[in-house]
Amino acid sequence: MTTGINCDMGESYGIYTLGNDEDIMSHITAANVACGFHAGDPSVMSATIEAAQRHGVAVGAHPSLPDRQGFGRREMKLAPDELGSLLTYQVGALWGFLETSGMELNHMKVHGALYGMTARDADLSDVVCQVAKKFGVPVYGMAGTMHERCAQEAGVPFVSEFYADLDYAADGSLIISRSHGAVDTLVAAGRVRRAIREGLAESVDGPDVSVRADTVCIHSDTPNAADLASAVAQAVADESKNW
Amino acid sequence: MTTGINCDMGESYGIYTLGNDEDIMSHITAANVACGFHAGDPSVMSATIEAAQRHGVAVGAHPSLPDRQGFGRREMKLAPDELGSLLTYQVGALWGFLETSGMELNHMKVHGALYGMTARDADLSDVVCQVAKKFGVPVYGMAGTMHERCAQEAGVPFVSEFYADLDYAADGSLIISRSHGAVDTLVAAGRVRRAIREGLAESVDGPDVSVRADTVCIHSDTPNAADLASAVAQAVADESKNW
Amino acid sequence: MTTGINCDMGESYGIYTLGNDEDIMSHITAANVACGFHAGDPSVMSATIEAAQRHGVAVGAHPSLPDRQGFGRREMKLAPDELGSLLTYQVGALWGFLETSGMELNHMKVHGALYGMTARDADLSDVVCQVAKKFGVPVYGMAGTMHERCAQEAGVPFVSEFYADLDYAADGSLIISRSHGAVDTLVAAGRVRRAIREGLAESVDGPDVSVRADTVCIHSDTPNAADLASAVAQAVADESKNW
Amino acid sequence: MTTGINCDMGESYGIYTLGNDEDIMSHITAANVACGFHAGDPSVMSATIEAAQRHGVAVGAHPSLPDRQGFGRREMKLAPDELGSLLTYQVGALWGFLETSGMELNHMKVHGALYGMTARDADLSDVVCQVAKKFGVPVYGMAGTMHERCAQEAGVPFVSEFYADLDYAADGSLIISRSHGAVDTLVAAGRVRRAIREGLAESVDGPDVSVRADTVCIHSDTPNAADLASAVAQAVADESKNW
Repeated sequence: MTTGINCDMGESYGIYTLGNDEDIMSHITAANVACGFHAGDPSVMSATIEAAQRHGVAVGAHPSLPDRQGFGRREMKLAPDELGSLLTYQVGALWGFLETSGMELNHMKVHGALYGMTARDADLSDVVCQVAKKFGVPVYGMAGTMHERCAQEAGVPFVSEFYADLDYAADGSLIISRSHGAVDTLVAAGRVRRAIREGLAESVDGPDVSVRADTVCIHSDTPNAADLASAVAQAVADESKNW
Repeated sequence: MTTGINCDMGESYGIYTLGNDEDIMSHITAANVACGFHAGDPSVMSATIEAAQRHGVAVGAHPSLPDRQGFGRREMKLAPDELGSLLTYQVGALWGFLETSGMELNHMKVHGALYGMTARDADLSDVVCQVAKKFGVPVYGMAGTMHERCAQEAGVPFVSEFYADLDYAADGSLIISRSHGAVDTLVAAGRVRRAIREGLAESVDGPDVSVRADTVCIHSDTPNAADLASAVAQAVADESKNW
Repeated sequence: MTTGINCDMGESYGIYTLGNDEDIMSHITAANVACGFHAGDPSVMSATIEAAQRHGVAVGAHPSLPDRQGFGRREMKLAPDELGSLLTYQVGALWGFLETSGMELNHMKVHGALYGMTARDADLSDVVCQVAKKFGVPVYGMAGTMHERCAQEAGVPFVSEFYADLDYAADGSLIISRSHGAVDTLVAAGRVRRAIREGLAESVDGPDVSVRADTVCIHSDTPNAADLASAVAQAVADESKNW
Repeated sequence: MTTGINCDMGESYGIYTLGNDEDIMSHITAANVACGFHAGDPSVMSATIEAAQRHGVAVGAHPSLPDRQGFGRREMKLAPDELGSLLTYQVGALWGFLETSGMELNHMKVHGALYGMTARDADLSDVVCQVAKKFGVPVYGMAGTMHERCAQEAGVPFVSEFYADLDYAADGSLIISRSHGAVDTLVAAGRVRRAIREGLAESVDGPDVSVRADTVCIHSDTPNAADLASAVAQAVADESKNW
């Protein structure tokens, strides 16, 4: 199976534009589309689905904590059943656009602080998996965390992400920042090749950590995201030939 | 075909309770469930779908202008494509709850100011019909208005509502207020019987106006809504026996 | 100095009514008015200020985390400078209504989850005190917590609250629930008298805890809030005579 | 009296940046600061006030209809008393930041669709003037419209705006679009000089219309806004020398 490339898309809002979605779309295999809680709005979602369809990109739901001002990057204490409803609402909203466009929901990947919270908290992660199960789609997440463990327990297909534009700590955890700087595309491509080939990534502290790149994630708000996407796509293509 | 009874449901929000949904559910055939833009939230929607399922009540989407503070009762100028996206988002969100509960979307009925706007404006009404068409459901609305005309032109089944708890003007239009007072249940039952039997209703100005009651609408924020629902259900049942 | 009685007021929103503000107003000395982030809206704030003025009740700001759906009762991770801006915005908004009504801001008391967070976290509590200092008003809070310590360090007057309708744990901390049940008014009045006279309250675990009742707090969403307010007012008046 | 230059500022939101506020600040005399309803948020408002203070720019409130997704550019039907409360809330919120920074509120200018609505509707325009009167500040608006007439009747100082980056119709009304294109700075500077010197502007239809430039308005979301601000500032300075 070829490694995919996924990117958060549709994170513009009203008058505000974020990310060069059109440029990035031509390099990725799957779009994680914002569902209007941390970013995106119905008009943006409609346009993003249309662009994904045009580029032949698979569309997954990218639901978030209800925090537009904080872009879903501020942790919030939610009861599991509240979270379940928040997720069902957002995935359903996106599904509406897909259904009325003749497309299918491809996967589910939670956003921002919720991604980190569900990596650590089994109860919350299980909620994500149960919702994905009801919608019949796999969950994207970090191997070795509750993302993977809960998906296995729930019997939901799990797709392991490798992050091309974020750093890893020595314990294998991601270093998630509230904003992203530009990333050296050569370095990132090298990291992707090594992740695919060796299943390893160098942590910021020095030692290698074990990673699994079923799909490579890039962020559309990384300043040079389109170049990064292109470099990653090339790296993935190169590695695919080697198999 | 028996006349249905529909009621706006799921209009509570967070800590705030509106309407006695449980009491009303046992008397109606179809619930128009708020989709989180004028009222409702993901937790409320989840609970409302659960209650509808328990009571065997069909569920339709009740989308609105994006105006929670104004309860969707303040007109707002929207471009047709904006409206289309707002509707798709809301109907999709509700659909998510139905799909994950093994239920089907029954119909679509727009809320509040948007109901009045689409009764008058063909462009906006057509947007509603196109969205309903894509989701494969009929539109509830007022006979003789753009609701009906646009549904016919779009080839979407149209269900004509009679309002048990609102007054009609002499030109046949509804008198929509921003809040509802209690309604005399005997009077309302009488109006429902006459609407079903004769297709007529007395307007506030005196003369009769022509009405068609495919379904009778009651409002959950009418103070005695459960009693009203019960009286209307009895009136509908009585008239059904006469056929 | 006579013990005051404060109550959260103005927590209705749009079409939704919460609490019997009018009935409660006649029994309290200070209203903590919601600022539109967890509850309240500009129209509600305007009406609440008008009612407070009519009843001769002092008005304080009752700012919250930005979480209307969760009524400000869900914890959220905020950077101190973010919190400072959120508080300044909300207090300023309330101040606008006071200023245009010829009234003055009396105090500041943070709401819900933020109340608990600032009781524990010195950095966040200091932000509250700095904002109160800039607006020149005292802070209401719990004696013995960071509320008091940070106020002392910032040189901001501190007013210690005793809770008539919440339980205390054996460590003196409040047991804050997401919804409130009815409270026995006789029991509450007795607790208030003892708090004023002896500075003690019985904890849910049995042992007495030390409390200081500069002001007694009651909640407007406690089902029998007006009766409770009346009983507490009588208890405070009785104790005042003893001095 | 020298002609001022005003610009809408602080229209970023959360992660989203709009306009080059820092670059524009050095060329203007007055900032109309968004109050969080169409744009801006507490953190953005705090930073904008700080920048205005650093640049010695006077700060006015720029309140809007409650419509962040539509950037306040979609008309909405509001009752006058609702509007009054919405304005008081927003102006108060901004006032909080000014007060805690030791600055004073300079003026009030309503945003977007509300600007057009109040130019035409005396009842709504009077609400704006009454709020400005209570806060003790002048109103910015369009001469010859209800902006000016209501200000005169309410006894509120009125400051007439000339628009450097918008077109005028032959009837003297502004052509307000939902987004702005780049503006030729030479053309704009010429229009400003003529407006100041002759009180005239060429309409899109050909004939001149009468204008009065107490202050020249530029929009921060005009793509070349900083260059435009600089050119307008030079034009204003040149004309001032002629007096």
